[in-house]
Amino acid sequence: MHSVFDILSRKRGLSPGVITDPDERPKAPPTIEVIEFSATVCEKHAVATPADAIQRVKPDRVTWINIDGLWDSNLLHEFGNLLEIHPLLVEDIGTPIQRPKLEEQEDHLLAVVRLVSLGSEDPLSTSETQVSLLLREHLVVTFREGRCGGAFDSVRGRIEANRGRIRRADASYLFYALLDSLVDQSFVLLAAVEDRIVNLEERVETNQNMPDIAAETLPLRRAISTLKRAAAPARDMLGNLVRCDSTLIADSVRPFLQDVQEHGVHVVEGADTVRDSLNAVLEAHRSAVGMRTNEVMRVLTIIASVFIPITFVAGVYGMNFELMPELRSPWGYPVVLGVMGCLAGGMLWFFRKRGWL
Amino acid sequence: MHSVFDILSRKRGLSPGVITDPDERPKAPPTIEVIEFSATVCEKHAVATPADAIQRVKPDRVTWINIDGLWDSNLLHEFGNLLEIHPLLVEDIGTPIQRPKLEEQEDHLLAVVRLVSLGSEDPLSTSETQVSLLLREHLVVTFREGRCGGAFDSVRGRIEANRGRIRRADASYLFYALLDSLVDQSFVLLAAVEDRIVNLEERVETNQNMPDIAAETLPLRRAISTLKRAAAPARDMLGNLVRCDSTLIADSVRPFLQDVQEHGVHVVEGADTVRDSLNAVLEAHRSAVGMRTNEVMRVLTIIASVFIPITFVAGVYGMNFELMPELRSPWGYPVVLGVMGCLAGGMLWFFRKRGWL
Amino acid sequence: MHSVFDILSRKRGLSPGVITDPDERPKAPPTIEVIEFSATVCEKHAVATPADAIQRVKPDRVTWINIDGLWDSNLLHEFGNLLEIHPLLVEDIGTPIQRPKLEEQEDHLLAVVRLVSLGSEDPLSTSETQVSLLLREHLVVTFREGRCGGAFDSVRGRIEANRGRIRRADASYLFYALLDSLVDQSFVLLAAVEDRIVNLEERVETNQNMPDIAAETLPLRRAISTLKRAAAPARDMLGNLVRCDSTLIADSVRPFLQDVQEHGVHVVEGADTVRDSLNAVLEAHRSAVGMRTNEVMRVLTIIASVFIPITFVAGVYGMNFELMPELRSPWGYPVVLGVMGCLAGGMLWFFRKRGWL
Amino acid sequence: MHSVFDILSRKRGLSPGVITDPDERPKAPPTIEVIEFSATVCEKHAVATPADAIQRVKPDRVTWINIDGLWDSNLLHEFGNLLEIHPLLVEDIGTPIQRPKLEEQEDHLLAVVRLVSLGSEDPLSTSETQVSLLLREHLVVTFREGRCGGAFDSVRGRIEANRGRIRRADASYLFYALLDSLVDQSFVLLAAVEDRIVNLEERVETNQNMPDIAAETLPLRRAISTLKRAAAPARDMLGNLVRCDSTLIADSVRPFLQDVQEHGVHVVEGADTVRDSLNAVLEAHRSAVGMRTNEVMRVLTIIASVFIPITFVAGVYGMNFELMPELRSPWGYPVVLGVMGCLAGGMLWFFRKRGWL
Amino acid sequence: MHSVFDILSRKRGLSPGVITDPDERPKAPPTIEVIEFSATVCEKHAVATPADAIQRVKPDRVTWINIDGLWDSNLLHEFGNLLEIHPLLVEDIGTPIQRPKLEEQEDHLLAVVRLVSLGSEDPLSTSETQVSLLLREHLVVTFREGRCGGAFDSVRGRIEANRGRIRRADASYLFYALLDSLVDQSFVLLAAVEDRIVNLEERVETNQNMPDIAAETLPLRRAISTLKRAAAPARDMLGNLVRCDSTLIADSVRPFLQDVQEHGVHVVEGADTVRDSLNAVLEAHRSAVGMRTNEVMRVLTIIASVFIPITFVAGVYGMNFELMPELRSPWGYPVVLGVMGCLAGGMLWFFRKRGWL
Repeated sequence: MHSVFDILSRKRGLSPGVITDPDERPKAPPTIEVIEFSATVCEKHAVATPADAIQRVKPDRVTWINIDGLWDSNLLHEFGNLLEIHPLLVEDIGTPIQRPKLEEQEDHLLAVVRLVSLGSEDPLSTSETQVSLLLREHLVVTFREGRCGGAFDSVRGRIEANRGRIRRADASYLFYALLDSLVDQSFVLLAAVEDRIVNLEERVETNQNMPDIAAETLPLRRAISTLKRAAAPARDMLGNLVRCDSTLIADSVRPFLQDVQEHGVHVVEGADTVRDSLNAVLEAHRSAVGMRTNEVMRVLTIIASVFIPITFVAGVYGMNFELMPELRSPWGYPVVLGVMGCLAGGMLWFFRKRGWL
Repeated sequence: MHSVFDILSRKRGLSPGVITDPDERPKAPPTIEVIEFSATVCEKHAVATPADAIQRVKPDRVTWINIDGLWDSNLLHEFGNLLEIHPLLVEDIGTPIQRPKLEEQEDHLLAVVRLVSLGSEDPLSTSETQVSLLLREHLVVTFREGRCGGAFDSVRGRIEANRGRIRRADASYLFYALLDSLVDQSFVLLAAVEDRIVNLEERVETNQNMPDIAAETLPLRRAISTLKRAAAPARDMLGNLVRCDSTLIADSVRPFLQDVQEHGVHVVEGADTVRDSLNAVLEAHRSAVGMRTNEVMRVLTIIASVFIPITFVAGVYGMNFELMPELRSPWGYPVVLGVMGCLAGGMLWFFRKRGWL
Repeated sequence: MHSVFDILSRKRGLSPGVITDPDERPKAPPTIEVIEFSATVCEKHAVATPADAIQRVKPDRVTWINIDGLWDSNLLHEFGNLLEIHPLLVEDIGTPIQRPKLEEQEDHLLAVVRLVSLGSEDPLSTSETQVSLLLREHLVVTFREGRCGGAFDSVRGRIEANRGRIRRADASYLFYALLDSLVDQSFVLLAAVEDRIVNLEERVETNQNMPDIAAETLPLRRAISTLKRAAAPARDMLGNLVRCDSTLIADSVRPFLQDVQEHGVHVVEGADTVRDSLNAVLEAHRSAVGMRTNEVMRVLTIIASVFIPITFVAGVYGMNFELMPELRSPWGYPVVLGVMGCLAGGMLWFFRKRGWL
Repeated sequence: MHSVFDILSRKRGLSPGVITDPDERPKAPPTIEVIEFSATVCEKHAVATPADAIQRVKPDRVTWINIDGLWDSNLLHEFGNLLEIHPLLVEDIGTPIQRPKLEEQEDHLLAVVRLVSLGSEDPLSTSETQVSLLLREHLVVTFREGRCGGAFDSVRGRIEANRGRIRRADASYLFYALLDSLVDQSFVLLAAVEDRIVNLEERVETNQNMPDIAAETLPLRRAISTLKRAAAPARDMLGNLVRCDSTLIADSVRPFLQDVQEHGVHVVEGADTVRDSLNAVLEAHRSAVGMRTNEVMRVLTIIASVFIPITFVAGVYGMNFELMPELRSPWGYPVVLGVMGCLAGGMLWFFRKRGWL
Repeated sequence: MHSVFDILSRKRGLSPGVITDPDERPKAPPTIEVIEFSATVCEKHAVATPADAIQRVKPDRVTWINIDGLWDSNLLHEFGNLLEIHPLLVEDIGTPIQRPKLEEQEDHLLAVVRLVSLGSEDPLSTSETQVSLLLREHLVVTFREGRCGGAFDSVRGRIEANRGRIRRADASYLFYALLDSLVDQSFVLLAAVEDRIVNLEERVETNQNMPDIAAETLPLRRAISTLKRAAAPARDMLGNLVRCDSTLIADSVRPFLQDVQEHGVHVVEGADTVRDSLNAVLEAHRSAVGMRTNEVMRVLTIIASVFIPITFVAGVYGMNFELMPELRSPWGYPVVLGVMGCLAGGMLWFFRKRGWL
C-alpha cells in the first residue's frame, strides 16, 4: 500500500494533468454502468465507452453514470472531453490522493470526497477510496477508485424499488442522496472505534490484565486520524456546496444538502470526541500502571526490608569463629530469636506508620 | 444502550425523513398533554390525537402541548402536517441524535436541544435525551424523548401556581422559560462533577490511599465530554436565537433570551474549567504516585544496601574451609563485627550525603 | 462554601428575577454609605434606605452610594425601581455568580465584575466576591457582596485627601477609578502566585527534598483558574466599555478606560504565563523525580548485583556436605576469595562499561 | 552550520540592504544560466554577467535565468538594478533566512520560498535552502542558495524534451511549474518521515527490543518542525499569489496556481498529521515501557518474595548455637522443609490472588 | 529584583499618572544626550535639562534625544509638558512594566517596547528593560530604563561613521533604525537558547550522563516565556505601525517598517519553534530515563532471580540438623551443584524467552 505522500512525491515534476502510471495499480478493467430513471421508468445498462454512456442522457429523465476504476487515463480524459471538464480536474479525479473539494463551473459541479471504510479482515484497518461526483443537468457521473464496500448500493436499491422521493426528484436530489450515503459511511467507522474504546475503558476500570493497551490504541488513532483528515475538508466542501448558488441544485434539495452538511460537522466533532476519549483511556491506563508498579514495589520493599536484616543476624551466628561467646550461652538462641522478632516487628511498625501496609 | 454513532450508522442509506424503526425502543405509548392558560385561566388536558391537541389552540390564551415519547413516527408526521413542518425537521425531532440547532421559519421556530442528566442509580452515569421545542403564535409544542427527570416540572408548577409573570406573558415567554429550565439542568451535572473533583483533590492533597483515582476519572471525563458535546452547539443555537428577528418573539422576552444565552456560555466555560481541574488532579496524582514510588524504592535501596554487604561478610566466615586462619584468632569475631559496623556506617553516610536519608 | 454551579443548579426552574433565598447567607444587615464630593466639598453619610440615598444626588456634585451586602432582595429591588433598572439586572446584581458583563442603557451603565482576592489565613485560598458598578449622571452606585478586602479604600482615601484629579472630575472618572482599583487587585494575586512558583522552581533546581510539590501546585492551579475565569470576561467587558459611545463617559476619561482595559489584558496574559510556569515546574519536577528514581535504582542494582553472586559462593562453601574436596585443600579459601573478587570486579567493570557508575 | 537565529543575530545593527559577509560561506563562484524557449525554439547558455543575461530577454520567447549561489552581493545588486528591484528585496534574496513571502510590484512578482530537502548521507538530516523566484514579462529569474538537490531538473527536462504544454505557454506558466516542483519536493520529506514512523509503530506494536525510540524521534521532530516552519508561510504566500490580480499571470495559469496552493495546504496538514502520529507512537512507546517495567518488577518481586523468607529460615538453622533443640530432633529437617514449602506456597497464593501471576 | 506583577500590585489604588516611588530603584542620575545630524553635519552633546535638549531641535536636521534612566519623574513630566504628551503616557514611559504598544497622536507617535537581553554573568538569566521611542517632526526621543546592553550603539555608530543612508534620511528613518536594532536584539537570545537546546539534544541522543536536564530546562523556558510575552504584543504593535497612516512616517520608510514587522513575526514564531524543540527534548529525555530505569531494573531482576533461588539451596544445606541424609551421601555435593546449575539455567532460559536478555 502506498501512502498519499508517497504517491505525491512520485508525481513531483510531472506535467500537471498527467495521471500517474497505471502500472502501479491492479488491472481489472474499469466498468461503466448507466442507470436511467424517472417517476415511471427505471433502466440499467452496462456500456463500453464514454460516448455510449453520454448519448443515453435524455432531458425527460435522470441519468446516473457510475465508473468503477480510475486507472485508465484515456477513458477519464475521454469523459473529460465529452463533459467539458478542465484537464486539471480530470487529473484530480484520476489521482486518488486529493483533498476533498468542490469545483463549481457554470454547467457542472464536481465534488471530490474521500471515503474511509473499514477493512474486511482486520476490523480496524482502514482503507481510503476516492469518489468524485459530477452533477450536470439531468446527469450525475460518479467516479470511484474501487467498489468501496457498497456505499452506493442502498441508493441504487431505493431507485430500483422506487422507495422515497428519489424517482420523482431531479438529478441534484440524486447527487445529494449519493453524497449522503458517503458521509453516513463515516458513522460506521466512528461506531466501531467507539465500541473498542468502551471495551478498553472497561478493561482499565476493572483493572484487568492489560499488557497491550498502548499497542492497541495505535490502529485506533490511525483510524481516527485518517477519518479526520478526510472529513474536515469534506465538511468545508459541504459548507461550500450549501452556500453555492448554482442553478443546477433545485431549491427543494437545498434543505437536504443542509442536512448532509450537518452530518459532516457531526463526523468531525465525533472524531474529536472519540480522540479525546482515547486519550483519556490511555491516560487512565498509564496512571493505573504507575499505581500497580508502586504497589508491586511496596510489596517487594516490605518483604525484603523485614527479612534482610534478620537474615543478616542469622548469618552472623552462622559464622565459624572459635571464640563467639554467645554461641555457648544457653540463652543465646532464644535471645537472638527475640532480637530477630523485634527487628521484624519494628520494620512492620515503620511501614504501617507510613501507610504502606 | 446504543450510542449516537451506532444509530447514525444504521440509518445510512435510508431515505431522509424516515424515522428509524421503532422496534429498537421501549413500547410505552406516547402521551400528549395540553396545558392552556392565560392570566385568569389554567386548564390541563390529556388528549389522544394530534388533531385533538391542535384544535384546542385559541388566540386568547397560550397553549402548551407536550409530547412524551418519540417512537410513533405516524404521530410525529401527523403533528408535522398539522403544524406545516418540513418532513426533514420532523425526522430531526423523531431521531434523538441531532446536534442542537435552531430552525427559523416564517410562522414557527424550532429549537432542538439535548438534555444531559444524571443517572438515577450511579450518580455519574449520564443519560442524554433530546428535547425539541416548537414556537408558533399562541402555541408551544415540546417533543421529549422520555420523561427526562422532570426538567419541565418547575415550569408547570409556576403556571399552575401562577408564580412570576408566566401566566400574564405570551407564548415566547413560555418558550424561554422551558429553554431556561433545560439549560439550568446542566448546572446540576457540573455541580456534581465539581463535587467529585473536590473530593479527589482532597484525597490527593492529604496523600490518602488512592488506588483507583485514574479509573474514577474516566466516568467524570465521559460526563464532561457528553455535556460539552451537547452544550457547545446549544450555546451557538441560543446565540442564533438571540440574534433572530422573528416576530414570534416578543420584545419584552428578548432580555430573558439574552440571559439564557449567557447561561449557555457559562455551561460551556464551566465544562472547560471542570475538565482543567480534572486534568490538574490527575497530573498531581501521577506526580504523587511517582514520588511515592521513589520513596518506596529509597527505603528498599537503603535497607538492602546496608545489609547485603555485611551479610556477605557473615557468609564468608560461615564457610567451612579447614584453613581459615581468621577463624582461630581470638580477635577475629570482634574485628569482623567492627568491619561490618564500618561497612554499614559507610553506606549510611553515603546515603545521608546524597540526601536520601 | 457553595460553588457557583451549586448555586446555579439550585436556582433552576425559579422565575427569573427572583433573588436566591437569603437563608443561605450570613445575616449582617446591608449597609448603605453615601459620599458626596465636588472640587470643594466632601461629605460622608450612612443612610438607612435606598430612597434616603437617592435623594441626596445633586447636579453640582458627584455622589457615590456604596452598598455592602446583597442578601436583602427587597433593598435591591427598591434600588432597582428608584434607578429604573430592569428586574433581570437587579437579579444579576443580587446573585453573586454572574459572568462579568457590561449592560449599556440610555441613562445608565452597569458593570458587573468578580473580584478574586486572597484569603486572610491561607495565603492561597482565594475567595471570589461580586461587585456591580452602576454609573448614572452625577451618580455612581456600587453593590458589593462583602467588604472584599478594602478594594475601594484607596479610592475613598484619594477623595477624602483630595489627591490627584478625582475631586475635580465627574462621575465617570470615579467609575473609572473604582474599576481600576478592582482590576489592579488581581495583580496582588498574580504576584503571590508567581512568588510561590519561583520558590518551587528554586527547590526543583537545587534538587532539594520535595515530597509535596504536586500537592502544592493544586491550590496554585485553582487560584489561577479562578482568576482566569473572572478576568477573561472582565477583559472583554472592559473592551466593550472602551468602545461604548455612551454620553455618560466624559471624553477626558476615555484614555483612562483604555488604560484599565490594557491592565485587564495584562491580567489575562499574566494568568496564562503563570500557568505555563507552573506547568514547567511540575514537568521539571516529574522529570527530576524520574531521574532520582533511576539513580536510586541504579545504586540498588549495583550493590545487589555485586554482592548477591559472591554471597551465593560463600553460601556454597557454607554447606555441610561431608565430601567437599575444596574444603580440605589449603588453597581453597584464598582461591575462593579470589574468585569472589573477580566476580565482584567483573560486575563493576560491566556497570562501568554501561555508564552506570 | 549556522542556524537562522544565529545569522539574524549577527546582522543586528547593520544597515538594511547590506548582505551578510560572504566570508561565512563556501567560495564556489555563482553560476548564471539562461534558458530561452518558445514553442519552436529552445536554447541554453551559460553567461558571465547579469547584463549578459538580461540582454537575452526577447518578447517572442520566454527567458529563464537561473542563478546558483547567493554570496556575491555585487552580482545580486547588479541584478537588482537591472531589474529595478527595491534594495530591501535584494537583501531578502541574498540572505537565506527569510520567511517565505510574496512581493507584488507593478511590473514584477517576487516569491521567496524555503526548500527543505533530505540530506544525502543521513536520510533524516534536513537542509534548508532558500529559493527566490522573480516573474517579469517574458522572464523568470530564479535565485538559489545552492544546487538544492535538483528541484528544477524535471522542469528543465520538460522544457528540453517539449513535454506537456510548457513550451507553448508564457512566463507565468514557467513560474507556476517551478513553484510546483518546489512544493512537491516537500512530499518526499513527508513520505520519508511517514515511512520511519510506520517502522517505529511496527516495532512498538510487536513489542520488539526498542532502546532508542525516544532518541530516534528527535531528528524526525526536527525535520517536521523545519518543514512546518517553511511550509506554513509558504502556504499563505501561495494563497496571496492565487488572490493577486497582477496582469503578469495569465488567466489560463490561475487554475494551476490554485492547484499548487492546494498542495501547499496539503503539505501543512500533512506535517500536522505526521507530528500527531509521532506523538502517538512516542506515547504508546512510553506506555509500553511503563508496562514492561511493571512486568520486570513483578517478576523480581515474586521471586524475591518467595525465596527471601525461606532463605531466612535456612539461615536460622545454619546458626551455630550449642543449644538449638530442633537441630537434634529427627523431625527437625523435614518439618523445616515443610514450613519452607508452606511459606513459599503462601506467597504464591497471595500473588495469584492479586492477579500478579 | 521585583517582578512585573509585584510592581503592578504595589501601584494599585494610586492616582493614575503617578510614577512609582523612585526609592525602589538605583540612584544614578538620568543622563540626557542629544545627537544632531544631517547629510553634512553630526554633533553630539550631553545636556542637563529637558528644555536644553528640546531647544536644540532645528528643522534642517534630525535630532535624537536619548534619556537613560527613568526614575526621575519630574524630568519625565517636564519632557511630557514640553512635548505635549498625555500624562498617562508619561506614566507609561516612566513605569517599566508596560505591554508594548503604539500611541498615535496627531503630531507624535509613541512606541513602547520591552527589550529582553541576556544577563552578563549567567548566559541565560534574562533581564527586561523598557524602551520608549517618541517620533515627532525632525525629532526622535528615546527613553531607556537602563543602558540596556548597547542596543543603540550600532545605530549611533552608523550615524557617526555616515554608513548607509541614515544621515541622508529623515527622523522616521532613525525611528525605524532604532526599532530595528531593538527587535534584532531578540535573535541573540533565540540563538543562545537554540544553542543550548542543540547541546541538550546531543546529550540525550548520545545517551550521556544527564542528571540535570530537567533543571536546566527551567531557565530556558523562563527565557522563552519572557521573550514571548515581550515579543507577541511588540509584533502587533509593529503591525499597527505599518498600517498607521501618520504623515510623520516618510513613504520611503514604510517598506523598512514592513521589514521590521516581519522580523517581529519571525521572533514570535521562533520563540514557538524553540519552545517546541525544548518540549521535544524534555519528552525524549523522560522517555530515555524511563528506558534506562527499565534496563537497570532488568539487570537487577535477572541477577537477583538467578542467584536468590540457588543461594536458598545453599542455605538449606548449610543447616546444622543432625539428620540430613543428603549431607552424608558422596553424591550430595555434585547433585546439589547440578540442581543449582539447572535452576540458574532455567531462569536464564525464562528471561531469554521473554526477550529480556
